[in-house]
Amino acid sequence: APKVECKNPGITEFVGTAIGDTIGLVIANVDPILHSYMKLDPKYRSIGILGARTGAGPHIMAADEAVKATNTEIVAIELARDTKGGAGHGCLIIFGAEEVSDARRAVEVALKELDRTFGDVYANDAGHLELQYTARASLAIQKAFNAPVGKAFGLIVGAPAAIGVLMADTAIKTANVDIVGYASPAGGTSYSNEVILMVTGDSGAVRQSVIAARELGKKLLEAMAGPAPSVTKSYI
Amino acid sequence: APKVECKNPGITEFVGTAIGDTIGLVIANVDPILHSYMKLDPKYRSIGILGARTGAGPHIMAADEAVKATNTEIVAIELARDTKGGAGHGCLIIFGAEEVSDARRAVEVALKELDRTFGDVYANDAGHLELQYTARASLAIQKAFNAPVGKAFGLIVGAPAAIGVLMADTAIKTANVDIVGYASPAGGTSYSNEVILMVTGDSGAVRQSVIAARELGKKLLEAMAGPAPSVTKSYI
Amino acid sequence: APKVECKNPGITEFVGTAIGDTIGLVIANVDPILHSYMKLDPKYRSIGILGARTGAGPHIMAADEAVKATNTEIVAIELARDTKGGAGHGCLIIFGAEEVSDARRAVEVALKELDRTFGDVYANDAGHLELQYTARASLAIQKAFNAPVGKAFGLIVGAPAAIGVLMADTAIKTANVDIVGYASPAGGTSYSNEVILMVTGDSGAVRQSVIAARELGKKLLEAMAGPAPSVTKSYI
Repeated sequence: APKVECKNPGITEFVGTAIGDTIGLVIANVDPILHSYMKLDPKYRSIGILGARTGAGPHIMAADEAVKATNTEIVAIELARDTKGGAGHGCLIIFGAEEVSDARRAVEVALKELDRTFGDVYANDAGHLELQYTARASLAIQKAFNAPVGKAFGLIVGAPAAIGVLMADTAIKTANVDIVGYASPAGGTSYSNEVILMVTGDSGAVRQSVIAARELGKKLLEAMAGPAPSVTKSYI
Repeated sequence: APKVECKNPGITEFVGTAIGDTIGLVIANVDPILHSYMKLDPKYRSIGILGARTGAGPHIMAADEAVKATNTEIVAIELARDTKGGAGHGCLIIFGAEEVSDARRAVEVALKELDRTFGDVYANDAGHLELQYTARASLAIQKAFNAPVGKAFGLIVGAPAAIGVLMADTAIKTANVDIVGYASPAGGTSYSNEVILMVTGDSGAVRQSVIAARELGKKLLEAMAGPAPSVTKSYI
Repeated sequence: APKVECKNPGITEFVGTAIGDTIGLVIANVDPILHSYMKLDPKYRSIGILGARTGAGPHIMAADEAVKATNTEIVAIELARDTKGGAGHGCLIIFGAEEVSDARRAVEVALKELDRTFGDVYANDAGHLELQYTARASLAIQKAFNAPVGKAFGLIVGAPAAIGVLMADTAIKTANVDIVGYASPAGGTSYSNEVILMVTGDSGAVRQSVIAARELGKKLLEAMAGPAPSVTKSYI
């Protein structure tokens, strides 16, 4: 699809757009009845909204930086089966805040992080890989993956799912890391065609395990359909 | 995809096709064992079948007109995660009837309504909006959304889901309407990338709230990826 | 997408690729902790992995031949909502074996079967049909569809789902077969836009019922969007 210059639509609630058909919005004062239908914590009247057609991991990692940097909390993370015909997820992430300025700031930080967090997404016509790494997980990662706060965290995704199985096995054999979670088409995903491994542990070990999975995954995905370059620029 | 002139395939059960890769069919006498596997009410041996790759709201609204106009009942509404790589649903809707002529008539009416009910579907490369309005909901709307029969009903859909959140908040703040339901990627949808609000109330208020959500949604979707025209012609 | 010559990526675990963006892999010794996260039977340390973006039925049928021919067992069959924007499923199938050579052999057999088992997949822009038939079902078919081992088995799939309903009704009326299962967008699928009928019985009757459903389904799908040729070459 052709790139379109994003124009501010002149709406107070609009924050910006980013890669992955991502949009960032805020609401200063969510209608109280809608609020209860959305099952949000009533403590937060102001919300920040980060949503995308393509990507969930990159957005969760970006949101994790946003909650570290602002006075907000992650109140919802929902994964759509999307990626516009691809094998993965889109997302809807909601930040709660007492002040709308905090919610706006969180969305701004997250939108800015996305170029980085898409850096170890690799794709070709057959599928995609996604790798994420942080030396210190915060509350978005905890909310999404049930990973321990303050420790290193790695995310390893392969699609089609068969590739993810081998990446997961390689990751866990490469370094001494602990599994936080494992998801597959029939469990833990929204029926996406992915196998996802989440690991924690010593930061050097987590990083090493993520890199090993990436190198293996790239070879497999490229054996299926040729070059699978980074969507932006690798950061791990 | 290129438009293909629909030719009657010479099958008794064929009724017609319509926008959204929609097909309409009837079965005069469903096999009794299949009938029980389909969990249909045994009262109805004849069924009308309305199915599509793209669209669920437009088909439910069209089916609502069909049940008003014919001696049929809605016996099943199922939403596939589809839209051919888009962010929303496809559908399978089944009418029950005592006579096959009634089932056929219901499917015919529904097929004819679809050009209208796609009128407030707006789409571009980033996503879509869908708005629906009726002054008097009937049994298909009740079955699909649990909305009260005989009252005005409005449907507000935004995709990616983030846009739907803001449309929902705007709809509810614009006029004095009651929320009938709220659906999002992780609840009430088939993992589509949509937020959906269903409202009821005074017909003027419902219409006003739907229009306000539409105007806001269009600005946001167009900020993401340029013009998002109606798929056919706006009716609200 | 352009065809890419598959090159062996120089990885021990790589077995091959096939139609449907399919990849075959083995792991000689699955990491024991990952093994438990994958909920595999601990008896099988070696696994074969067959995964695809497009297709589940063709892969289950191919896996069925593979378990007949090798000393392996089917330990997992998971269906993603995929087909790259199409109406159906992708898959992840795992073979368990005591020896990695057996797992590899099973994956090789399955990869080779796929050209045949895609033979009665028919597709055009509006959707697809899938028909499968075997005179003697084995353990993959039992695992996936709960069909009796050793008896004839037929699979009838139509997408959009409306076509599948009529194909199912025709199949069951054409010959004296028993229904093993019925799946639809809201039940038994991963929200795919398919209706799926599984039948068993006398081999002649099963074959006749599958063929009748195919002929009807082709006419309907072609009425929607023109020619719907076999993806490879019909085998039924």
